[in-house]
Amino acid sequence: MEKIKRNERLAAMTQILTAAPNRIFTLGYFCDMFKTAKSTVSEDVAILEDTMKKFQLGRLETVTGAAGGVRYRPIQVGGPQRAFVEDICRKLMDPSRLLPGGFLYFSDILADPEYVSGMGKLIAGAYYQTPVDFVLTMETKGIPVALMTAQALNVPLIIARRTTKVYEGSAVNISYLSGSGNIETMSLSRRAVKEGSRCLIVDDFMRGGGTANGMVELMKEFNVTVSGICFVLGLENPTAHLINGEKCLMLMSDLKPGENHVVRPADWVV
Amino acid sequence: MEKIKRNERLAAMTQILTAAPNRIFTLGYFCDMFKTAKSTVSEDVAILEDTMKKFQLGRLETVTGAAGGVRYRPIQVGGPQRAFVEDICRKLMDPSRLLPGGFLYFSDILADPEYVSGMGKLIAGAYYQTPVDFVLTMETKGIPVALMTAQALNVPLIIARRTTKVYEGSAVNISYLSGSGNIETMSLSRRAVKEGSRCLIVDDFMRGGGTANGMVELMKEFNVTVSGICFVLGLENPTAHLINGEKCLMLMSDLKPGENHVVRPADWVV
Repeated sequence: MEKIKRNERLAAMTQILTAAPNRIFTLGYFCDMFKTAKSTVSEDVAILEDTMKKFQLGRLETVTGAAGGVRYRPIQVGGPQRAFVEDICRKLMDPSRLLPGGFLYFSDILADPEYVSGMGKLIAGAYYQTPVDFVLTMETKGIPVALMTAQALNVPLIIARRTTKVYEGSAVNISYLSGSGNIETMSLSRRAVKEGSRCLIVDDFMRGGGTANGMVELMKEFNVTVSGICFVLGLENPTAHLINGEKCLMLMSDLKPGENHVVRPADWVV
Repeated sequence: MEKIKRNERLAAMTQILTAAPNRIFTLGYFCDMFKTAKSTVSEDVAILEDTMKKFQLGRLETVTGAAGGVRYRPIQVGGPQRAFVEDICRKLMDPSRLLPGGFLYFSDILADPEYVSGMGKLIAGAYYQTPVDFVLTMETKGIPVALMTAQALNVPLIIARRTTKVYEGSAVNISYLSGSGNIETMSLSRRAVKEGSRCLIVDDFMRGGGTANGMVELMKEFNVTVSGICFVLGLENPTAHLINGEKCLMLMSDLKPGENHVVRPADWVV
């Protein structure tokens, strides 16, 4: 094999690292791939680290210790994320999105790959210091953002269903009081979750917190710790608090007759 | 601003291009970003193109004409994708996945970011030559793969629901005959789809084709052309054909008493 130039190594490393966020690659992995010395790969990593910082493309981090190596995390403080969320807020404030009953139409935003990818990275960025073994969401609207969060954290996604499905095998079902005051059910395949693991709950919208409370109850059945809860959109003045420190990416003002609704990024989005 | 080195340009370009597959970036975009001449960016692109090819990381393509530039497509013939799908097939052949009634448990695979990202790229790779304005799926299990397909195609995802939801606004509902012989409903927000556009249907599993037929009917209501249909898993001997040329990524053998099921990659996965 011909000698691989630094140019080529840097391009290939960038693709490999950014396609698998939060995964630790050993320097040896790249030494083998490029048939080159560890010191050379170390220099490559240093160049990449600076370049990511300079162009606000995320952070490359060196992890020391036995399981050490290098990993990519897509968010950096002061990056373009605040402007990105402000742009979504502007879209959500379009008066035509307000539906009868005070509901907001945002299914289009919640299924747009570019938006959900950005939002998932942002949510993941808030939980890199928290132990998370999987992301949990309840079907349907939150699935895309939850998937992108799971991808950025490098953990699986698990989707709770409204009813038991034959193709899920034996399942645990619970009943919960929904935000609209109805008793609803939630179901999760027994084999989906490992006892004693830790989850991050991600969902699209928090009104009364009923569904999220249901997910917390469901996790108790599996002996799973809830490490965090994050909603794409919440209310400025929520009527419920689910656990200490639940987060929302965006906040919507109370609806007042004759006034337009206001949506803004949460303060932690910096 | 200090002069930006080729090393840095290549790393930044790789991140930007691969994070937004199938989007055309003009050379001028990078000239502005790096304050450099078009000839220099052209050379950078040529280096990147070769590097991607050498390390089987996808294809960088130069698009000529007024709307021209450079775009990244994650799949290249002869890349690692066949082995990737074979690995999933091996997992799916685990006898413990077979459920009563001949159902296969594969919800875990369908929500794993690494697997759905790879499968979505593969499905997208089969439709780059086909006009696709959006990806359509029916809730729930196919959503992650459909989202990743939409991302790799650089188009939005649209999710049909089982019932009309208040937060979707006015909707079009249809009834269809499901694979299990029941009459079911499917609902899609009126504002979700633009008349006269073209869609790619992506879903998790094709048994009798009932749900997919429902989606085809639903698209007729919106005057949308179905450009293609792709399933993650299909049967070797399907009982239905929906449109000419529907695809499956993987195929499962007929279940015979006392024999294990066999799952293999489709022939087009090369």
